Amino acid sequence: MQEQYLDDLYVGQTFGTPSLTVSAEAIKAFAQQFDFQPFHLDQEAAKSTFFGELVASGWHTACLTMKILLEGDYRPAGGFIGGKADELRWPNPTRPGDVLTCTTEILEIRPSATRPGQGTVKMRTTTFNASKEVVYILVMNGIAQRRPAV
Amino acid sequence: MQEQYLDDLYVGQTFGTPSLTVSAEAIKAFAQQFDFQPFHLDQEAAKSTFFGELVASGWHTACLTMKILLEGDYRPAGGFIGGKADELRWPNPTRPGDVLTCTTEILEIRPSATRPGQGTVKMRTTTFNASKEVVYILVMNGIAQRRPAV
Repeated sequence: MQEQYLDDLYVGQTFGTPSLTVSAEAIKAFAQQFDFQPFHLDQEAAKSTFFGELVASGWHTACLTMKILLEGDYRPAGGFIGGKADELRWPNPTRPGDVLTCTTEILEIRPSATRPGQGTVKMRTTTFNASKEVVYILVMNGIAQRRPAV
Repeated sequence: MQEQYLDDLYVGQTFGTPSLTVSAEAIKAFAQQFDFQPFHLDQEAAKSTFFGELVASGWHTACLTMKILLEGDYRPAGGFIGGKADELRWPNPTRPGDVLTCTTEILEIRPSATRPGQGTVKMRTTTFNASKEVVYILVMNGIAQRRPAV
């Protein structure tokens, strides 16, 4: 699959990703490294918490989204480089057994006024579970490369 | 250390964390799992990219921040539970050998109008390297528990 330059994108364009199944083991392993709270570590301990059940760390959902984005249709030339998000939300938790997929929509394209070779692309990435519930929304301002002059 | 209820917090209150050293090996291991782009995977391959050197995935910086937050002074009763961020930025990359520390400042405290036992705490977490450059800013709306009536 070809990489996309800023010049290849248009507002409203959408891209998909493959799906990924999240296991209880993966949820716990991630939590042990980075977010070792009872509701991310142990089914039993999670029962008396806010969530009432084992759920993935929101950062785990963010990382899994990054992973399937890299395996998806949008292949920005120069890579996914984001400096600033305008929105970050987890409307529903990711649960053991969830099958996640993402849709990314191009919201804005702004060629740089000062750097002729690049620009900014604002995109909204939405991650869904198999019931089409939204588990994650990220609106990111990414750096995009212009197509080099021939 | 005691947990803090919403009622124990005040606007302007700040909390610290221990420090954490980020190795090149940890940067690459994280990238292999979640963000397998050349500038996160390999020093040589990174030279011809936007960054020009090996840098940590922004999501790695986010996850390491979560980890040291959990080891820090702010221990919200019921845990760190965030549904929505108002700001997320990576002003500088995290590099191999960086020693990260965080400061969290309480920005707003809003008891819930409908759920007497809880409320929302807006907090800004800033992650610094040893040169006091900011590598990460997260403004998160967290769910906070009220102190139970005696």
